[in-house]
Amino acid sequence: MVKHRSAARSEWDWLDAVRRRVKLPRGGETIVGIGDDCAVFRPRGAAEDLLFTTDLLVEDVHFRRSTHTARDVGWKALARGLSDIAAMGGTPRFVLLSLAVAPWCDARWLRCFYDGLLALARKEGAVLAGGDFGHADKLAADVVVCGAVERGKALLRSGARAGDRLYVSGRLGGSALGLAGHGGAARKRHLRPEPRVALGRFLLRLGATAAMDLSDGLSLDLRRLCLESKLAADIAAPPIFGGATRAQALHGGEDYELLFAVPPARRVPRAYQGVPLTQIGILRKGRAGTVLLDGAPLEPLGYDHFRDR
Amino acid sequence: MVKHRSAARSEWDWLDAVRRRVKLPRGGETIVGIGDDCAVFRPRGAAEDLLFTTDLLVEDVHFRRSTHTARDVGWKALARGLSDIAAMGGTPRFVLLSLAVAPWCDARWLRCFYDGLLALARKEGAVLAGGDFGHADKLAADVVVCGAVERGKALLRSGARAGDRLYVSGRLGGSALGLAGHGGAARKRHLRPEPRVALGRFLLRLGATAAMDLSDGLSLDLRRLCLESKLAADIAAPPIFGGATRAQALHGGEDYELLFAVPPARRVPRAYQGVPLTQIGILRKGRAGTVLLDGAPLEPLGYDHFRDR
Repeated sequence: MVKHRSAARSEWDWLDAVRRRVKLPRGGETIVGIGDDCAVFRPRGAAEDLLFTTDLLVEDVHFRRSTHTARDVGWKALARGLSDIAAMGGTPRFVLLSLAVAPWCDARWLRCFYDGLLALARKEGAVLAGGDFGHADKLAADVVVCGAVERGKALLRSGARAGDRLYVSGRLGGSALGLAGHGGAARKRHLRPEPRVALGRFLLRLGATAAMDLSDGLSLDLRRLCLESKLAADIAAPPIFGGATRAQALHGGEDYELLFAVPPARRVPRAYQGVPLTQIGILRKGRAGTVLLDGAPLEPLGYDHFRDR
Repeated sequence: MVKHRSAARSEWDWLDAVRRRVKLPRGGETIVGIGDDCAVFRPRGAAEDLLFTTDLLVEDVHFRRSTHTARDVGWKALARGLSDIAAMGGTPRFVLLSLAVAPWCDARWLRCFYDGLLALARKEGAVLAGGDFGHADKLAADVVVCGAVERGKALLRSGARAGDRLYVSGRLGGSALGLAGHGGAARKRHLRPEPRVALGRFLLRLGATAAMDLSDGLSLDLRRLCLESKLAADIAAPPIFGGATRAQALHGGEDYELLFAVPPARRVPRAYQGVPLTQIGILRKGRAGTVLLDGAPLEPLGYDHFRDR
């Protein structure tokens, strides 16, 4: 959902201004709006809440034809939304795709794009239910994912409490390493990220209090979680993807791992389905949004669409 | 939803191929997928079905900065989706906005864009619940609208029966006339279309069997309704917007009036809330998709994103 890609200025401020203009009606069906991974909608009489997320993928901004195959682009277009659903503890239900084709797009490229998108949709049990079709100078795809979660149980960014332990899944910086030209596992991590859908549902059962996906870099995303929960955080360095630098692990985007908070009384296993779960710190009272790494302030250096375009 | 902007070739064929690849699971919650104005989703236990539509608006394809103010663009970006909800007889609930800003976008333009979008959202009772934010060479906005309709009652394109009367709301060709540079009411029709949301709900109560919105021109859209309902149609010329040509009324896009079918036993008033409702013909058995105007075949000349880009 509307993501706060800037920590302090520009995009953050802008979206905050939009959020202030858009008041959700009390007692309405839309119970979470702008500012979390997904919007949450409670249909009248339904047993479940519905989660909605929308993600734009633009040629030469989010992918390049020189590095991404058509299948990679289709996969990634959907992976980003599935990762938002995972971050709320949801189960994917359906997908809408708006596609603006570029002059260079031929039928073969489009077929492979759909192959990639539909392969991931099938894997996660989501059905492509509709969309829109247009054209533009550069390819643009907007993917909406709807997921479902037990009524009132969605994992929000705002749910963490002082004293909760902070965890991340996996190892960070792999996508940044792949983006920098590294091959092998790092390249795969960059081109075909694996949204942590099953893990998200597990975190719900485990009693996590807050979660979000790491799309714009730990330093920026953790600051957002702290701001939404009105807390500060003390962390140590996160687990680093093999071959990545400490800076890539702290600030690199598109890892699509989960960042989550768990009350101290809950026992978190060391791994879930082969993905390591590592405590990186603790949430505490303090100036909302403050993040200390080994006791020193951590600058939010992740990606911002206003600042970095 | 994925709209069939080409009648016979290209886009139609392409989307038909996608539709064949995407089988909706029987007994699943997604009950209408690709091929109608909206996808229809039935949440477990809910009293209402949910409608979803997504519409892309791209600079220099769907609007030009030289003719559209920022408010016009914001209004129009939402009007298209609301019109799809209207065509199914739904009530708008919430909106998601994915926005890729162009280098020329400044804060003032964006504020006015939101002014236009939020003014229409308020008017129709929809709340902006989230979205995504990025950048691109040209501005692109993808708007998702969710609406609700009584369970099982959504007006589909496929519901018409032989013998049903065909109607249109309003007068056609106004938007094409405005696009061609005409001022006054035609220009307003082009820049600030009025989705027929209240009329759509009225048609549901009236017992209409099928409906769709006129976004790509009567000749093309009527053919699509006939194809989905597996029927042919005999029509006379529709009511023409003051100053427009017969060709603009038959083939011009973006009128956002409603085309609908009503069984002969139902009485349709001459107008609803000041908008004329005019019988233009009848649906009959015959080769699916055939449309005769005054007894002669009517070529589907509306807009096609594959053919016309």
